[in-house]
Amino acid sequence: MGNKPMKLWQKDYSLDQQIQKFTVGGDHLLDQHLIEYDCQASLAHAEMLQSIGVLSLGELADLKQGLAEISELAGNKDFPIDEACEDCHTAIENYLTDKFGEAGKKIHAARSRNDQVLTCLRLYEKYELGQIDNLLIDYQSCLAKLVARQGTIPLPGYTHMQRAMPTTIAMWLLSFKDSADDNRLLLRSVLALVDQSPLGTAAGFGVPVLKIDREQTARALGFKKVMKNPMYAALSRGKFETQVINLCSQIMFDLNKLASDLILFNTTEFGFTTLPSEICTGSSIMPQKSNPDVLELLRGQYHIVLGEEFKVKSLLANLISGYNRDLQLTKEPLIKSVNTTKACLEIIQVVLNKISFNKAACKKALSPGVFATEKALELVQMGLPFREAYRAAAKKMGEIK
Amino acid sequence: MGNKPMKLWQKDYSLDQQIQKFTVGGDHLLDQHLIEYDCQASLAHAEMLQSIGVLSLGELADLKQGLAEISELAGNKDFPIDEACEDCHTAIENYLTDKFGEAGKKIHAARSRNDQVLTCLRLYEKYELGQIDNLLIDYQSCLAKLVARQGTIPLPGYTHMQRAMPTTIAMWLLSFKDSADDNRLLLRSVLALVDQSPLGTAAGFGVPVLKIDREQTARALGFKKVMKNPMYAALSRGKFETQVINLCSQIMFDLNKLASDLILFNTTEFGFTTLPSEICTGSSIMPQKSNPDVLELLRGQYHIVLGEEFKVKSLLANLISGYNRDLQLTKEPLIKSVNTTKACLEIIQVVLNKISFNKAACKKALSPGVFATEKALELVQMGLPFREAYRAAAKKMGEIK
Amino acid sequence: MGNKPMKLWQKDYSLDQQIQKFTVGGDHLLDQHLIEYDCQASLAHAEMLQSIGVLSLGELADLKQGLAEISELAGNKDFPIDEACEDCHTAIENYLTDKFGEAGKKIHAARSRNDQVLTCLRLYEKYELGQIDNLLIDYQSCLAKLVARQGTIPLPGYTHMQRAMPTTIAMWLLSFKDSADDNRLLLRSVLALVDQSPLGTAAGFGVPVLKIDREQTARALGFKKVMKNPMYAALSRGKFETQVINLCSQIMFDLNKLASDLILFNTTEFGFTTLPSEICTGSSIMPQKSNPDVLELLRGQYHIVLGEEFKVKSLLANLISGYNRDLQLTKEPLIKSVNTTKACLEIIQVVLNKISFNKAACKKALSPGVFATEKALELVQMGLPFREAYRAAAKKMGEIK
Amino acid sequence: MGNKPMKLWQKDYSLDQQIQKFTVGGDHLLDQHLIEYDCQASLAHAEMLQSIGVLSLGELADLKQGLAEISELAGNKDFPIDEACEDCHTAIENYLTDKFGEAGKKIHAARSRNDQVLTCLRLYEKYELGQIDNLLIDYQSCLAKLVARQGTIPLPGYTHMQRAMPTTIAMWLLSFKDSADDNRLLLRSVLALVDQSPLGTAAGFGVPVLKIDREQTARALGFKKVMKNPMYAALSRGKFETQVINLCSQIMFDLNKLASDLILFNTTEFGFTTLPSEICTGSSIMPQKSNPDVLELLRGQYHIVLGEEFKVKSLLANLISGYNRDLQLTKEPLIKSVNTTKACLEIIQVVLNKISFNKAACKKALSPGVFATEKALELVQMGLPFREAYRAAAKKMGEIK
Repeated sequence: MGNKPMKLWQKDYSLDQQIQKFTVGGDHLLDQHLIEYDCQASLAHAEMLQSIGVLSLGELADLKQGLAEISELAGNKDFPIDEACEDCHTAIENYLTDKFGEAGKKIHAARSRNDQVLTCLRLYEKYELGQIDNLLIDYQSCLAKLVARQGTIPLPGYTHMQRAMPTTIAMWLLSFKDSADDNRLLLRSVLALVDQSPLGTAAGFGVPVLKIDREQTARALGFKKVMKNPMYAALSRGKFETQVINLCSQIMFDLNKLASDLILFNTTEFGFTTLPSEICTGSSIMPQKSNPDVLELLRGQYHIVLGEEFKVKSLLANLISGYNRDLQLTKEPLIKSVNTTKACLEIIQVVLNKISFNKAACKKALSPGVFATEKALELVQMGLPFREAYRAAAKKMGEIK
Repeated sequence: MGNKPMKLWQKDYSLDQQIQKFTVGGDHLLDQHLIEYDCQASLAHAEMLQSIGVLSLGELADLKQGLAEISELAGNKDFPIDEACEDCHTAIENYLTDKFGEAGKKIHAARSRNDQVLTCLRLYEKYELGQIDNLLIDYQSCLAKLVARQGTIPLPGYTHMQRAMPTTIAMWLLSFKDSADDNRLLLRSVLALVDQSPLGTAAGFGVPVLKIDREQTARALGFKKVMKNPMYAALSRGKFETQVINLCSQIMFDLNKLASDLILFNTTEFGFTTLPSEICTGSSIMPQKSNPDVLELLRGQYHIVLGEEFKVKSLLANLISGYNRDLQLTKEPLIKSVNTTKACLEIIQVVLNKISFNKAACKKALSPGVFATEKALELVQMGLPFREAYRAAAKKMGEIK
Repeated sequence: MGNKPMKLWQKDYSLDQQIQKFTVGGDHLLDQHLIEYDCQASLAHAEMLQSIGVLSLGELADLKQGLAEISELAGNKDFPIDEACEDCHTAIENYLTDKFGEAGKKIHAARSRNDQVLTCLRLYEKYELGQIDNLLIDYQSCLAKLVARQGTIPLPGYTHMQRAMPTTIAMWLLSFKDSADDNRLLLRSVLALVDQSPLGTAAGFGVPVLKIDREQTARALGFKKVMKNPMYAALSRGKFETQVINLCSQIMFDLNKLASDLILFNTTEFGFTTLPSEICTGSSIMPQKSNPDVLELLRGQYHIVLGEEFKVKSLLANLISGYNRDLQLTKEPLIKSVNTTKACLEIIQVVLNKISFNKAACKKALSPGVFATEKALELVQMGLPFREAYRAAAKKMGEIK
Repeated sequence: MGNKPMKLWQKDYSLDQQIQKFTVGGDHLLDQHLIEYDCQASLAHAEMLQSIGVLSLGELADLKQGLAEISELAGNKDFPIDEACEDCHTAIENYLTDKFGEAGKKIHAARSRNDQVLTCLRLYEKYELGQIDNLLIDYQSCLAKLVARQGTIPLPGYTHMQRAMPTTIAMWLLSFKDSADDNRLLLRSVLALVDQSPLGTAAGFGVPVLKIDREQTARALGFKKVMKNPMYAALSRGKFETQVINLCSQIMFDLNKLASDLILFNTTEFGFTTLPSEICTGSSIMPQKSNPDVLELLRGQYHIVLGEEFKVKSLLANLISGYNRDLQLTKEPLIKSVNTTKACLEIIQVVLNKISFNKAACKKALSPGVFATEKALELVQMGLPFREAYRAAAKKMGEIK
């Protein structure tokens, strides 16, 4: 076999080259995100295999060493995956077999690529949800700092894009902080959902013959719970991913709205803020332009995540139980959504740290109409029924003759 | 003004009739779902207004009586909403004003239609989530009963729509039961999200002048928590609805898959089940046909809910903070998603109660290949490395010469 | 059988009542849009059946009379469809059979509900595309009239929501007129697509035994072409509908952008227009408000149509060839998209006819920066390389020190 | 300035590095697809500038040479774009300026990156639509060849996934061929739409001062028509892309259905075909498996393209007229949709060339029920009213007792 990469299911025919290229798609590249998690999961699996007698202590030691090597190589971006290998799982098994022979050939006992992928994805998701949570906290603290700096500035609140009632920079920005609190609650519920170990469900129907210990591997990998029914593990593939992406789209929605506000406030006509030039870009033809591209892209990225969410929600449908290869196509949307959300949560902090508001322009926008509700409620306080107070205030504003 | 319906914001001009028809849309019909909740919320608001001195005890008594009347009329489908009234909130205020004069004119003090709608929707959502939870429990018990009846029947599990490994009716159906458990956890987190009182946030910027007691109304309406920041209340409109619909689409996804399984199992070629004729429909031209329409529609309805989810997630975007009328269009997707999900959870139970599986056909499908993994693992148990055992088993199957 | 409605496929068992309600869904209501087209198609089919000897001249005369009666009843909204009838096709056959006996029982020879529905939908689409085309022409003429009224007013063009270069009301509005021209071209290509007769493809596999004349029915119904392959007729169900809805979403996209422009121009801060109050609505709490609800809903309705498009494009997928009942669910999205688009094309005309622009505010917004490109190009005309001219102009604007 | 890449809008401050990375995104990589088209468009633009006196003949010669060099480098994948350059347009101008000084600095006169990008995208789309059309023709001829090989094999047609009426391999496959004909008509209408030259619309408001000749550049680039209104050019960005992607999703829809059919026909239970092993992949754990991954991924890729379509359709909305940076995010969905569609049209041909059908299994599936309609129509031919013939046939089938 030598250096030629071998597939896990290699038989005595060769896969058509065009078919191979098409079926692998971008998996060998995307899987760079998963190598570390497969090393962790393979180690836990190997330890369990040793504890039930499938591997010897020596073989386990070999695998431990090999997996540590791979993990280090991957950390240095130095564990490329050959297209013929299909994915990181095959590349890792091939590495172990090339290096240690028997031990490598034994590690796949009692597991399937299906539960390997599932386990890697769950570990990836748990880690990334933690990262996103940290970024949410940082973002909230940027909002708080800006409120501390300029929160007392009054400005009109808008409904229907028309001046409505008075508000402040603080009330406006803290609405996003509160929303981030609820997004963090949602994050915790998604985290609880994905924190279930699928390892040991094999191809989606469990492991016959061998007496594997699924509690042991779950414990070793830090999962709260074992996902018992193997067919539920298969059902959860993609479905859980929709929930991670739905969380991402919720976070992105807030950033979309905050960006929409800032873009409007940054127009010459509103003038509530003027973005500092080091975060603006220019025009190739119009010398005077200073454009809020960063905010426009923040706004647009919401739709990208939304598109990824609907890809997954749509492609899962109308398929029967058990693994279908269509599910491979859920991997890229997941990783793209996570990466986009993280990048956006980072960039909004740059903006929030550098922005400031023009007090004079904000105050000037508080034209008399903005206080009409206050006037009406003062009449209510004096005993007028609200509906009459409303008409009296409208009359005073010239809205009724 | 007499019998002519008056708008809450009526001034001394008339809205163009075409514009009125277009802006009201189907709201006067959809709002039939919300009248009861507006009565509850209006009552809580009125009691609060009395407690802070805006209403007298007599006026409160009038309003109580009026709201009870409206609630009863609505219960009997006898409180139609005129298009010129725009929505249930206006129709209710008009009824109260027509009947009690002053008291009716006073009830809108310290609230806006914005927080009225928000409060009604939250109460509606809390109630409907409870209904959906009950239906999920019933559905789970139908699954359990079917498992009790026929769970031990063995059949092949499929991957890639190819026979893979042995499974049972029980393992298959219980995977849906487990998934429903996780859906119920998701439901509880959505319920916690919407269980926040927006009443008193008025137009999205709070109530000046009057000292309202938001804790009192929240308590009266059974909300766990007051949503303090009024601009967050505005931000949550539509956003919370996406989470209710996302829950619906998760539930519908499971039904989509269960229906997909059953449609396949009901083909002549698979023959694992034969749907009883009283739940099948026929063809207008082909005398022999007995079709699983109910399952096909169950499958299709997932996509309808998905489309509603996409509508709301898409229409909320690129809008600035504060209420925008676009948000009115989130009401129909919410109500449609909830109603569809409930109808589907009911109809799947009819199917599950009436269906049974053909033991002989299921067993017959367990062809030798299905046991190949077992064979390989038996070799592993005898000490062969898995990768060699795999090849040995493949050889035996004739997959390798 | 008497008055009890009978299904086309009625055998000697009764469909479970819950199943019936679920499978019929809203079809008996939606089909009010299709009765007229089924009468036309049934007449053409009957004439063909007579010409090949399946119907006598007397029977044909009966059916002609019956179909004319139904058509008239339907025109007066007086042909309700019982839920037990499932759809308009059954209701029509039942009416004919109740009234004429034999003739009614014969009319379904050589057709299936599948090709009946397909034919009705195609006729409906052809008619509605014509209506939409007329509305597009009217909308274009409203744009032209407004340009004639106020087209010469100069105002800044915006990129990145920042003032960019000078433009005019004419250039701005005529960009929508040009886009409508391209939308009309798209409409014609969609019209050509749907203008193929599916009548005679029966259940999707053609008609055996009887020698039907598909050219005759196609000619009678005004179709350009016969859709020969019966399985292509089945494949086109839903697929053609996505193209009608894609057209609708293209039209709606333009209205979304025009509405977005107008909402911004109508803000106090921009002030380029002030919507007349008879097309604005007020606030229930804020006496001063005059809101552009009509424009916000126009903007929002784009997303509704988009959601309908996504529903159909998603629900069609992953299904095998031949009719699947899921396809019934494409009917409502089609009708809703068509109706929404027509309503929006009508309402924008009301707005365009009533709106006018504030010349002074538009001109005032042409601040010096807007002319920077002109300055740079004047330097180019004098021989300076553009990139240097750009920097020189930027320097003059104070963008470079 | 030396080797440091310079932006087209470079002023005397530096863009924040994080902001630069975020705003550029993947543009410097994606633009590899566009370099060739920018060279063509830049050449046409330069020739026009020379003809109106902005460039000398010598400068034009320099630019010609430079653009030819870049085009050759790009053809060899040897024209990398630095992230600091933002995109291919900047990299090209920088190359020309570094090499030729004046001429390079002059080339951007009378154009903006906006119309440069638009022109490149239109040229790209025209080329790729031609490629897709060729692939559609090839795919149709593969279908025809398979029909020639095995078209006469009879098999049941299915409705509701139940055996319905007899059909043949030919009728089934040719339905896809007919559909491809209609897709090619759609392609031609999309091609006509994008075949309009935006060059010279500059930033979306035209070019002042200089008297450019837009007909000349359009002619040189092979465009059928000049897009006159510069604001329509801006409006068309993204909108035209949705139509290219809609075409892709139509093509992918057919492949999705063909793949769905083949996956089902390839099951053990149906057995109408057995995919040759060189296009199947195996399982990592189940030795017997031979899976139709290629077909499952073909099926899944439809949803990927659908997600890309909805990204673009969603992100364009609720934005005002004129360029907004959000539009940059339409580039990747376009390129991804085109590449996916081409790859899928290629791979289906591999499958169609290698597949064959099992005549015996197909014929065996023609069970008696499949001929029930024929039986009923024979009774009709003998004079029985259809509805009675239907019941008689049903009785014979045992459907009615």
